[in-house]
Amino acid sequence: MNQIVLRSPYLIFLGSETNPTYAKTGAGVAHWRPEDCLGQFHLPGGSVDLGLPEMTIEQAAEAGAKSLLIGTAVVGGAISDSWLDALEAALRSGMDVVAGVHTRLSDIPRLAQASKETGSKLIDVRVPPKGLPVGNGKRRSGKRVLTVGTDCALGKKYTALALTDELREQGAKATFRASGQTGIIISGAGIPIDAVVSDFVSGAAEVLSPENEADHWDVIEGQGSLHHPGYAAVSVGLLLGSQPDAFVVCHEAGRKTIEGWPDYELPSIGEVIERAIELGRRTNPAIRPVGISVNTSTLSEEQARNYLDALEQEYDLPATDPIRFGIRAIAQKLVSEF
Amino acid sequence: MNQIVLRSPYLIFLGSETNPTYAKTGAGVAHWRPEDCLGQFHLPGGSVDLGLPEMTIEQAAEAGAKSLLIGTAVVGGAISDSWLDALEAALRSGMDVVAGVHTRLSDIPRLAQASKETGSKLIDVRVPPKGLPVGNGKRRSGKRVLTVGTDCALGKKYTALALTDELREQGAKATFRASGQTGIIISGAGIPIDAVVSDFVSGAAEVLSPENEADHWDVIEGQGSLHHPGYAAVSVGLLLGSQPDAFVVCHEAGRKTIEGWPDYELPSIGEVIERAIELGRRTNPAIRPVGISVNTSTLSEEQARNYLDALEQEYDLPATDPIRFGIRAIAQKLVSEF
Repeated sequence: MNQIVLRSPYLIFLGSETNPTYAKTGAGVAHWRPEDCLGQFHLPGGSVDLGLPEMTIEQAAEAGAKSLLIGTAVVGGAISDSWLDALEAALRSGMDVVAGVHTRLSDIPRLAQASKETGSKLIDVRVPPKGLPVGNGKRRSGKRVLTVGTDCALGKKYTALALTDELREQGAKATFRASGQTGIIISGAGIPIDAVVSDFVSGAAEVLSPENEADHWDVIEGQGSLHHPGYAAVSVGLLLGSQPDAFVVCHEAGRKTIEGWPDYELPSIGEVIERAIELGRRTNPAIRPVGISVNTSTLSEEQARNYLDALEQEYDLPATDPIRFGIRAIAQKLVSEF
Repeated sequence: MNQIVLRSPYLIFLGSETNPTYAKTGAGVAHWRPEDCLGQFHLPGGSVDLGLPEMTIEQAAEAGAKSLLIGTAVVGGAISDSWLDALEAALRSGMDVVAGVHTRLSDIPRLAQASKETGSKLIDVRVPPKGLPVGNGKRRSGKRVLTVGTDCALGKKYTALALTDELREQGAKATFRASGQTGIIISGAGIPIDAVVSDFVSGAAEVLSPENEADHWDVIEGQGSLHHPGYAAVSVGLLLGSQPDAFVVCHEAGRKTIEGWPDYELPSIGEVIERAIELGRRTNPAIRPVGISVNTSTLSEEQARNYLDALEQEYDLPATDPIRFGIRAIAQKLVSEF
């Protein structure tokens, strides 16, 4: 398969974190995959609460935990020395240790040694699997929907996760396909597309959403933006390899320029639609937009409704804020039109 | 600088190769950089002649050779065991050893050891330099021209090399910027763009053609094709990071489908022009085409002239086969219009 695959159920490691902002990964797993979460584990001083049962490493191992997920990230993305006793104990009690931070777990001699001795794995979800192919561009069975954005960091992952759940709610077969480290930890599988060598990006996207039953939806987490001066290559490779039948445009209300690139105007939703079709039809001539997903957190609820109504008028597509209003209309469109 | 940089002058290593087809890299260096080539070296049985003086490792070292370039590639891209005595001798006589084959030089224990003991370097030009940045998209001084293709392997490197020489011939300042392994060996510097992690492709292209004098041309070797189902991500990243003022479309007369992807029609030259402008204007709003470079080797000379005339009419751009007819008109257009 060539995807990263995590073994569930999980114990979520929260270190001594006190600020929920830095425990977003753990919170994401607890929110989206509660059935895979056995419990949470703190070091002394930690106070973030994901609402899961508190467990020691030993209790979790006994209860059948297969992986310890590092659910918190400190600034700089390092593994704190104060974590190592617990991480080693997890390995020695038969759990894999999974992280999406910048430091590689296998570069820490103590953990590498414990992994070697026990056979428990160190899984760095920022490291792509080996042996990814060049994209072959061959059509494959199954249906695919990709989230594309006007920019980075405005809800492509959330939209894809919410859409997957809503498709299932409506009786469709659907799998979330994670293309970034947080998504991989949340969903338990995937490929960190932006870490793949550029020659193999489309191929990695093909592996990420392999052929499937004709009525099955892969809901693929987008990366970057087709108009991004730094990351467009990632987005183009993911688009071509995903050969999506449908795409959802993700946007943040009020954002005017590319985040971190203030000289670059944000493309309009219409420009993103045009470019996604223009590029995407190379591998799927039938590609078309099915909805607009907007982060409206800067607007009042009334402003948000007016803004979304105006988008629906302008683009003749369902427009929603999935956090505020759900994503039912987009899922319905997929179910009824494909 | 973050580019790979080779130390000249060179001794070209030809192994025991008898077929000139497999010595293209060596032939390229001898053709484009004769002033950097001290000599050629064969193992017993080898017969390929690049027209350079035959030298032993010792003679070359004494004459001041700074690098031994492996100028031949066997099928599969391995380093033959029978080469190791010579490669080690080169390292021990103070030369770097440079290769662009698939096997990594540093994975061969004997060579790694000799390199460590002597300080002579093993340079794998397929391995990108470390520390490449994310593309910042900032405009930088100097002029840039990029070769873009309707497909892979139809003359983007040759066109860029020929255009660099012709620009200099006409009195302009020009530097060839190599984006692939053969180009790097030929020109002595560059970055293998297709081996760069996708998040950093645009940034690598920015490093490859750094800011320069306002009247200086960087002539950037293109990679892949904007319409390629496997490699478009590489091409898009290179285009955005290069922020070219001008581009030359490269094509092969008679090619109908993407080489190796028979289900994919080749884009027309017009489609390539349109897409290069559409994507490229994100980082350089003034981007425009300046010529068409065609490999006409399948046509008679008369057919080739007719074909090129027709292209000139259709696109209102100079069209040439640089091997048959030179590339003067395109260089003149760059010199006179920019």
